[in-house]
Amino acid sequence: MPPVILASYTVVGPKEGQGPLGTTFDEVWTDNIHGEKSWERAESKLLETAMQGALKQSGLNPEHVDYMLAGDLLNQIISSNFSARTMALPYIGLYGACSTMALSMAVGSMLIDGQFARNVLVGVSSHHETAERQYRLPTEQGMQRPMSAQWTVTGAGSLVLGQSGAGPRITAATIGRVLDYGEKDTANMGAAMAPAVTDTLVNHFNDLNRKPQDYDLIASGDLGMVGLALSQELLKRSGITSGPEFTDCGVLIYDKNQDVHAGASGCACSAVVFAGNIMQRLKAGELKRVLLVGSGALHSPTSQQQGESIPGIGHAVVIEA
Amino acid sequence: MPPVILASYTVVGPKEGQGPLGTTFDEVWTDNIHGEKSWERAESKLLETAMQGALKQSGLNPEHVDYMLAGDLLNQIISSNFSARTMALPYIGLYGACSTMALSMAVGSMLIDGQFARNVLVGVSSHHETAERQYRLPTEQGMQRPMSAQWTVTGAGSLVLGQSGAGPRITAATIGRVLDYGEKDTANMGAAMAPAVTDTLVNHFNDLNRKPQDYDLIASGDLGMVGLALSQELLKRSGITSGPEFTDCGVLIYDKNQDVHAGASGCACSAVVFAGNIMQRLKAGELKRVLLVGSGALHSPTSQQQGESIPGIGHAVVIEA
Repeated sequence: MPPVILASYTVVGPKEGQGPLGTTFDEVWTDNIHGEKSWERAESKLLETAMQGALKQSGLNPEHVDYMLAGDLLNQIISSNFSARTMALPYIGLYGACSTMALSMAVGSMLIDGQFARNVLVGVSSHHETAERQYRLPTEQGMQRPMSAQWTVTGAGSLVLGQSGAGPRITAATIGRVLDYGEKDTANMGAAMAPAVTDTLVNHFNDLNRKPQDYDLIASGDLGMVGLALSQELLKRSGITSGPEFTDCGVLIYDKNQDVHAGASGCACSAVVFAGNIMQRLKAGELKRVLLVGSGALHSPTSQQQGESIPGIGHAVVIEA
Repeated sequence: MPPVILASYTVVGPKEGQGPLGTTFDEVWTDNIHGEKSWERAESKLLETAMQGALKQSGLNPEHVDYMLAGDLLNQIISSNFSARTMALPYIGLYGACSTMALSMAVGSMLIDGQFARNVLVGVSSHHETAERQYRLPTEQGMQRPMSAQWTVTGAGSLVLGQSGAGPRITAATIGRVLDYGEKDTANMGAAMAPAVTDTLVNHFNDLNRKPQDYDLIASGDLGMVGLALSQELLKRSGITSGPEFTDCGVLIYDKNQDVHAGASGCACSAVVFAGNIMQRLKAGELKRVLLVGSGALHSPTSQQQGESIPGIGHAVVIEA
């Protein structure tokens, strides 16, 4: 049997709690710092909370979890490293920018299906203030954001994957290639990611001899409104027709009146939408087969200042009820 | 049969070329910038050169390589991302600081042994100037280095792992836990890594019911002279006696007269020593069974400025001729 998702846990900030999916999260913080000394410490706390929540919900003891797979947006993935220090589990650190949740699900599933693990804990985090000050400008500066900009989700999502038990199953994965169409605008991550996401979708459909309509839901990670439209267009030009089943976690998580412009981004975006809303709909039988396509803009302030464009990547995971 | 190392390739800078292992590397650059516009671009070039070299040496076409696994020390692992853009292979980005070569070998082997890949390309890089300016101070500043400081290796190493063929085999791996004994000195990475490396060694020996003397060589990644002495002492206190078989890639790669103080560090340190000298000795039959223990200091300038200590990690891989 394919690996099963035994448990899931989500924790988000207040803005995410006020959005249309607000009631689907396990915990909503009342502010983004939660009594910690820095935004970065708050982000580590988010990830620890999500991982401990998922582990608790699974009913497993830590000694039955063979690996922890995690990643985040901060330099040296410190939120994950510090969470791994707390969890004290054998730890595989991943970097796929905002695609890391799907990547960790894919790698974790292969470790289980390959008989190298009984259970694996996966999780990712992002934080609006830590991401903005690292990648762009500190939010305290109050800079105006262009309409193509996306809002980094403050939150963390975690899953426990296992060999056996009840729950939705991870039945396939397509690891993506890095594609770069030359986008250099750091306020337009959707455009940087759309080519790679589409490439992964096309490869996935070809490899498995499927079409978009074979899925009840195709959810990209955080293309946002600009990137989703571009990816739908690129898919069409590849001869593949998608319909309303193809949407984006970055479009779903905030309301239009929340002033986020093109939607949401951040590792936590697809993580909390999947581990919250989508998991609930899979368990309720509303969704039978879902394709989650984590999308990552491999953006670096250093290389951007050196004139480099922003490469993108997309990793796809199939989850079936 | 366990996964086999089908090919290896190394490229280093001039300082590494002048060291005692200079003749064991496939390519030695005459300077650290190699005609590129920035140190960072030079580092990407190192990794691309190593990966293309290993792939060429394996005689495989890229379409027979199912995954590329890579990581480096730069924020957002840009050297790996840009190399993945060039290689155009399905890409899993890893972050384990200087332990990433061992981590990529462990994960790559599991993907092959679990039947998820026929062949996997792994590789890592580091560069003295990119690492110093990101983690400490630009080398142009000419700051004096304390005696506990290690010198980041400029170079890259790559391996092609496969299901079948001739070559040394990866027969076991122990994924490490994050340990932190409170070290805050960014010029003493050996001390930050020694506890985690020792923990992995102890777990490895216990799990496999082995002792240090079961190996012809135990090579930690880049503990340097300070960290190696600490790890040997911690191992002794754990009741395990190691002898001259336990050494460190960071001690082996430079001569004492090269003014590197406590030895070498960087992802490339263990990568080029393993893919060069150790692979050659395995192939020549001089070494039968090797334990490579990648060591990583999960150091972040941001969290260090916020008062955090430096967590460490160690990942062990067994390679047999």
